[in-house]
Amino acid sequence: MDEFNLTMIADRLESMEETIISRILDRMQYKRNSAVYSTDKVFIKDMSPLDYMHKLSEQIFAQLGKFSVAEEKPFFRDTDLSINKNIVQKKEHFCSNILNGINMTSEIKKHYISFVKISCEDGDDSEYGSSAEADIAALTAISKRIHYGSFYVAESKFLSESQKYVDAIKKRDENAVRALLTRKEIEEKIVLRVKEKCDKIQDAYTSKLRKKIDSQLIGNFYENTIIPLTKDGETLYLFRRCENEN
Amino acid sequence: MDEFNLTMIADRLESMEETIISRILDRMQYKRNSAVYSTDKVFIKDMSPLDYMHKLSEQIFAQLGKFSVAEEKPFFRDTDLSINKNIVQKKEHFCSNILNGINMTSEIKKHYISFVKISCEDGDDSEYGSSAEADIAALTAISKRIHYGSFYVAESKFLSESQKYVDAIKKRDENAVRALLTRKEIEEKIVLRVKEKCDKIQDAYTSKLRKKIDSQLIGNFYENTIIPLTKDGETLYLFRRCENEN
Repeated sequence: MDEFNLTMIADRLESMEETIISRILDRMQYKRNSAVYSTDKVFIKDMSPLDYMHKLSEQIFAQLGKFSVAEEKPFFRDTDLSINKNIVQKKEHFCSNILNGINMTSEIKKHYISFVKISCEDGDDSEYGSSAEADIAALTAISKRIHYGSFYVAESKFLSESQKYVDAIKKRDENAVRALLTRKEIEEKIVLRVKEKCDKIQDAYTSKLRKKIDSQLIGNFYENTIIPLTKDGETLYLFRRCENEN
Repeated sequence: MDEFNLTMIADRLESMEETIISRILDRMQYKRNSAVYSTDKVFIKDMSPLDYMHKLSEQIFAQLGKFSVAEEKPFFRDTDLSINKNIVQKKEHFCSNILNGINMTSEIKKHYISFVKISCEDGDDSEYGSSAEADIAALTAISKRIHYGSFYVAESKFLSESQKYVDAIKKRDENAVRALLTRKEIEEKIVLRVKEKCDKIQDAYTSKLRKKIDSQLIGNFYENTIIPLTKDGETLYLFRRCENEN
């Protein structure tokens, strides 16, 4: 089935890189703005300004049908997922009972926020709205990539070597499953491509006022967060898939 | 004053180009999605899906202090502009009574939506949420550029040739004011730079799945909408500024 053709899945993941890089570069134009992530000065109902904005925008997206796609996951567990009756709903996807049960957003958010705190220029420029807007856009793109990879890459790899996965999962050998999923040379290629693309996108920007971001930072984020969290999701998906069949 | 140094203002406008181009390119990845702009299938309270999403996100931005900056303008007249008490407000800007009274958003929205309807690929991909999100991001960036230009470019040009502007405005000669504001060679340079930047940004994207957009479309939008609307805003600002002094 075309849906699980690994080359096509890799193309889709590659197209998501462009969105992720652009959105992280946008966020890094602003200072750290710690107030955006803080509940110290209570903004509303014990939420940080980021969470408040994110929750409201997620609610609107839900009504527009965003979460009818498997790889789109709500960051807030209490978001009402019912879709406005005038919006045409997408068709059902494969293994929907498993896909619906996997949600990596809290891990994604935790890692993303610590990345922002380490990578953005120290200080406060009071651009909270734009800064939080860029965070939400980046989080959405990163989450889509990680969930899409977790489901489609894992299913594709499973279909090509089913018996090996079934054996490892029967023994509950998570390390063996991760080893089967790992293609070290592909991972290195992705990190290199991300860094190069990051530099090339920034070369296109002529403005003297735009901050030039070190592409190594974004390469590291791919290497240390995006790729490992995708592998966590793939492992989780495959365990549930095989348990389901027993 | 540095605030009205024309070179620095031009640098700021140039940095906004990069955001505008990226956001329009993002929008054009989706199909036309006419349902997003339509009130035929009433989404909620007679609003189009775009307006519904835009209004709610604008309300959150307002609380975060977005509209305390002169060049940021609400698209909805009934948006509550009071800022959450925990958000630090920016300092007052020049001529705030005039700047507060000028809002070009309805013209901007009208032109932008017809641009989308002409330029995006025909059809419906049911990605309403992402499509409307890209529209809101693009509209915000375009509006910021047009209002910033209207206020700061006009004030800077006025300060360098005040008497000529005062004379033309006394005669209520709008054409003379527009002629004083016009630097044809600069406008042509901007349009050319926008097209080149648009191509270069797209060259950085390696993915086969990303739609390649004709840079001429975005160059034309700058030439036929962004630059003329900025000039409308400059003219409006200068008439009000001089009337205010009489």
